[in-house]
Amino acid sequence: MRTPLCDRFGIEHPIFAFTPSEHVAAAVSRAGGLGVLGCVRFNDTDELERTLSWLDDNTDGKPYGVDIVMPMKVPTEGSSLDLGAMIPEEHRRFVDETLLKLGVPPLPEGEGREGVLGWLHSVARSHLDIALAHRPVLIANALGSPPVDVIEKCHEHGVAVAALAGAAKHATSHVANGVDIIVAQGYEAGGHTGEIASMVLTPDIVDAVGPDVPVLGAGGIGSGRQVAASLALGAQGVWTGSIWLGTEEYRSLSSSAGWETAFLRATSSDTVRSRVYTGKPARLLKTRWTEAWAQEGAPAPLPMPLQNLLVSDAHNRINASGDPDVVAMPVGQIVGRMNQVRPVAEVMAELVAGFDEAVAGLEKVRG
Amino acid sequence: MRTPLCDRFGIEHPIFAFTPSEHVAAAVSRAGGLGVLGCVRFNDTDELERTLSWLDDNTDGKPYGVDIVMPMKVPTEGSSLDLGAMIPEEHRRFVDETLLKLGVPPLPEGEGREGVLGWLHSVARSHLDIALAHRPVLIANALGSPPVDVIEKCHEHGVAVAALAGAAKHATSHVANGVDIIVAQGYEAGGHTGEIASMVLTPDIVDAVGPDVPVLGAGGIGSGRQVAASLALGAQGVWTGSIWLGTEEYRSLSSSAGWETAFLRATSSDTVRSRVYTGKPARLLKTRWTEAWAQEGAPAPLPMPLQNLLVSDAHNRINASGDPDVVAMPVGQIVGRMNQVRPVAEVMAELVAGFDEAVAGLEKVRG
Repeated sequence: MRTPLCDRFGIEHPIFAFTPSEHVAAAVSRAGGLGVLGCVRFNDTDELERTLSWLDDNTDGKPYGVDIVMPMKVPTEGSSLDLGAMIPEEHRRFVDETLLKLGVPPLPEGEGREGVLGWLHSVARSHLDIALAHRPVLIANALGSPPVDVIEKCHEHGVAVAALAGAAKHATSHVANGVDIIVAQGYEAGGHTGEIASMVLTPDIVDAVGPDVPVLGAGGIGSGRQVAASLALGAQGVWTGSIWLGTEEYRSLSSSAGWETAFLRATSSDTVRSRVYTGKPARLLKTRWTEAWAQEGAPAPLPMPLQNLLVSDAHNRINASGDPDVVAMPVGQIVGRMNQVRPVAEVMAELVAGFDEAVAGLEKVRG
Repeated sequence: MRTPLCDRFGIEHPIFAFTPSEHVAAAVSRAGGLGVLGCVRFNDTDELERTLSWLDDNTDGKPYGVDIVMPMKVPTEGSSLDLGAMIPEEHRRFVDETLLKLGVPPLPEGEGREGVLGWLHSVARSHLDIALAHRPVLIANALGSPPVDVIEKCHEHGVAVAALAGAAKHATSHVANGVDIIVAQGYEAGGHTGEIASMVLTPDIVDAVGPDVPVLGAGGIGSGRQVAASLALGAQGVWTGSIWLGTEEYRSLSSSAGWETAFLRATSSDTVRSRVYTGKPARLLKTRWTEAWAQEGAPAPLPMPLQNLLVSDAHNRINASGDPDVVAMPVGQIVGRMNQVRPVAEVMAELVAGFDEAVAGLEKVRG
């Protein structure tokens, strides 16, 4: 499986793997894809520094990427303390009461921690500076185009920039800003996503940005058949995420057995697109936690970054509880096919072999 | 483009075209696909009889199919008069006030007509009886599996039965009832549709029903690339609908220039999944009419078949008005690519040539 992206990045397969786990990212890169480390979870810049050094040392010299979360428009922001003051009491009370109702115990004394700060612009900028001191070949931004000066800085370092888009008009605007690669994020994808499904979105974006801008198909891709479908639609590669949550290497990151149980039993119908995780619409596993927010009388989620600050502590309590019924986790509709935990290399091998098999099938149909 | 479905039905390409227009259906069948005539619009069984005779005479002896709308469970029902009494006054008032607000004039004296009765079980059964006296090769049911006795009757006539499914568990239940072919109707499709996108749904259903039950991919298919993607996902053919609304042959059916203008300018973002058309979730063009129902204070749509009876007269008024801003019409997300009105034969030729080109591209990627 070779497209021009393989030569551009020195990879064997045009399979890009977003993951918050450096172990998954390294294993993907070693297996011939491009592991892309999600930075949003790193409140501590020293920890990110150590993690990227680990990646440098554990990818057999193969390339990797880094994913940041940065809105195009620089928001007014303050410390997590200032922002905390902007969260209405009604919302805090709803979270507390819901956790009580769902039987999620408080954290043991001293185990609380700060909310996830990676959603803050200043923190995302520090992630970028740390990343550029290492050897990423790609900086991806999960919230569309980053600000133009950020794109220019990446280019000065010889690093390509990818940005997610959920509609063709966003993709062309990203390209006008200088973005090199568009991730066409379909409705079925986990995390932040729009309303247009991959089958329609990928060719829309491919045609809108033209042949000189590579497009990665994202959303609904967990098997080689889906890779073939995405490339048939005109993508030059695929952007995958959810599928890596079901790998052995991901276990090192997780502190909870709850979500693994929840993922393994979920069907393709068991996700929901909701604003409860970050304040922007994101696809999550449908659980008693997301259902509580959908009930009549529940408050409307707050805008980004307030919503994530509001629920950060709840997420920590939920993770610690290990209860599969109240998991709070972004995942795409392919969760229905994540039915066993496999090593990364095995998933990669299936993506490649399944692609070849699907193409052979299509050749037979064409005759 | 050949799959086992071609031999089974005596067609050249496994492209199935749902359409309310006999002119489109005949043109698709003549061009080597399978035209499938939607019956729901025929209140007058004599008119259906005449239309099917016309199809018999205008398909150059090539096969065609017929689409009915029949729930699996036979509902209690009455005449349109009895049912009319079940519609709350609040809903009637909302429709009247909304039409006034949107500037949709009443119909000229004497031009009102009955609501669409094809949603009624008894009417759908009479459609079936008339169809079986002609020469359809396929009866498709737009509401999942028809009752078992209906399936058996079709089989006695040597006619295959297809049913729409929006989740794998529905597909396996249809097959258990005797349904021969599953239409995997993805989220992006026009008309009644579930929440799972084609990229995930098609392989889900293909694997659930096994290799002996052919699956047609539906939702988001309007170009050869999308046909290739659907077949890469394991479908043996495609079920198309929206794309035919943008053909010259369809013009014979439409009494309004409004919807054509509306379709031609719409983007992939301009649809909405809503219960306002029939009472069940269906994807429609997003217009001032659908937006009115989504506003705060609007009544919740009624269950099928009441909602369609409620809005039938409004649909007639809207169609007569010719105003593209208030169109009420099911269409899928591919409406964004329906940018010119073409003859059916040209659309078919692109589907086939685009498929070949996409497969050639995939071969190059595989190397």
